[in-house]
Amino acid sequence: MPHLTLEYSQNLAPFPEAEVLHAVNAALCAHPEVAQESDLKTRTVPVASFAIGTQPERRAFVHAQLRLLSGRTPEAKQALSALVLQALRPLVPRPDGVQVQVSVEVVDMDRASYQKERW
Amino acid sequence: MPHLTLEYSQNLAPFPEAEVLHAVNAALCAHPEVAQESDLKTRTVPVASFAIGTQPERRAFVHAQLRLLSGRTPEAKQALSALVLQALRPLVPRPDGVQVQVSVEVVDMDRASYQKERW
Amino acid sequence: MPHLTLEYSQNLAPFPEAEVLHAVNAALCAHPEVAQESDLKTRTVPVASFAIGTQPERRAFVHAQLRLLSGRTPEAKQALSALVLQALRPLVPRPDGVQVQVSVEVVDMDRASYQKERW
Repeated sequence: MPHLTLEYSQNLAPFPEAEVLHAVNAALCAHPEVAQESDLKTRTVPVASFAIGTQPERRAFVHAQLRLLSGRTPEAKQALSALVLQALRPLVPRPDGVQVQVSVEVVDMDRASYQKERW
Repeated sequence: MPHLTLEYSQNLAPFPEAEVLHAVNAALCAHPEVAQESDLKTRTVPVASFAIGTQPERRAFVHAQLRLLSGRTPEAKQALSALVLQALRPLVPRPDGVQVQVSVEVVDMDRASYQKERW
Repeated sequence: MPHLTLEYSQNLAPFPEAEVLHAVNAALCAHPEVAQESDLKTRTVPVASFAIGTQPERRAFVHAQLRLLSGRTPEAKQALSALVLQALRPLVPRPDGVQVQVSVEVVDMDRASYQKERW
C-alpha cells in the first residue's frame, strides 16, 4: 500500500518513464497519507493496442490508478489524486496535433483482507 | 471515463485486436450513458502467462473490465455489460478443442476523487 | 470468476511463473469458495518499469489481486488472501540484498452486471 499504475498510450513514446516515476513518487511520499516512503509501489505500463472513441482524430491517453487501503477521507483522496495530476502535467509528452487525455482514479482496497509481508 | 481493458489469453492469437476495438467502441459510444465518444478509452492486452483452473484441458479466456464513474443505475451497468459481450461474440476466435470463457465486469470509479484533463 | 492477476517486478527474474501459477491455482481451487476449478483464471505479469518509494535501496515487489464476485464474507476473503500468500512464500525469489514486498488484495466484483459465457 499504496499501489499506483500509470498507463500511457504508445503514441506518446518516447515517454519519460524514469522521470515520471520519480516525480510521482516524490510527490506522493511527501504527503502525510503515505506513512512510509517504501510502501509506494508505482509502475508505468505502455499500451500498444488501444482505441479512443470512434472518430479518426489523433488521440492519446495517460491513466493513473492509485490504490489505497480503505479508510481515507474523500478530501485525502482528492488531494492525492491532484498531486498525481500535478506531477504528470509538466512531464507527459504533448505531440503536435494529438489530443491527450490525462486522468487519475483513486481506488479503495479492502483493508480487512489485504495482506503484506516484507522479506 | 469510461475505461475499458480487454485481456485475452495468447492461445487465442491471432486475435483481431483492431476489429474488436472498433466493434466494442462503436457499441458503447452509441449508448446514451457514454456522453461523448472521445471519452471511451479501450485497450486490448494479450496475456502470455496464465493458468485456468487445475486441469490440463485446453482453455482460453477473454475478460473485459469496464470502469465507469460511479452513479450509474444497475440497469445501465447491465446494459453496457451486455453490449460488450454482444460485440465480442462474433469476433473472438474459437479454436477447435479449446474451451473459451468470456466475461465482462463493470467497475464503479470513485467520482469525487477522479480527475481528468484534456490537453 | 475468480480472476487473479499476479504482478512481479522484473528484478525478481527469473520468476518461476509456471510453478507459481500451478501452486496458486491448486491452493485456491481446493477451497470451497471456488465452486468449479475451471472458473479460476490466473495471470502472471512481469513489470519492467517501476519505482518503489523514493530511496535508492534495492527493492522488489509481488502483488496479487484476486477478484471475486461480491457476496463473500470477510472471513472467506481473508482465508483466500492468506492462501495466496502461503502459496507464494516458498516460490518467490529472494535475491541477496533486495527487500521484497509481497501483497495480496481481494476485490469484490459487482455481481449484478457481471456476465460470463463458455463457448
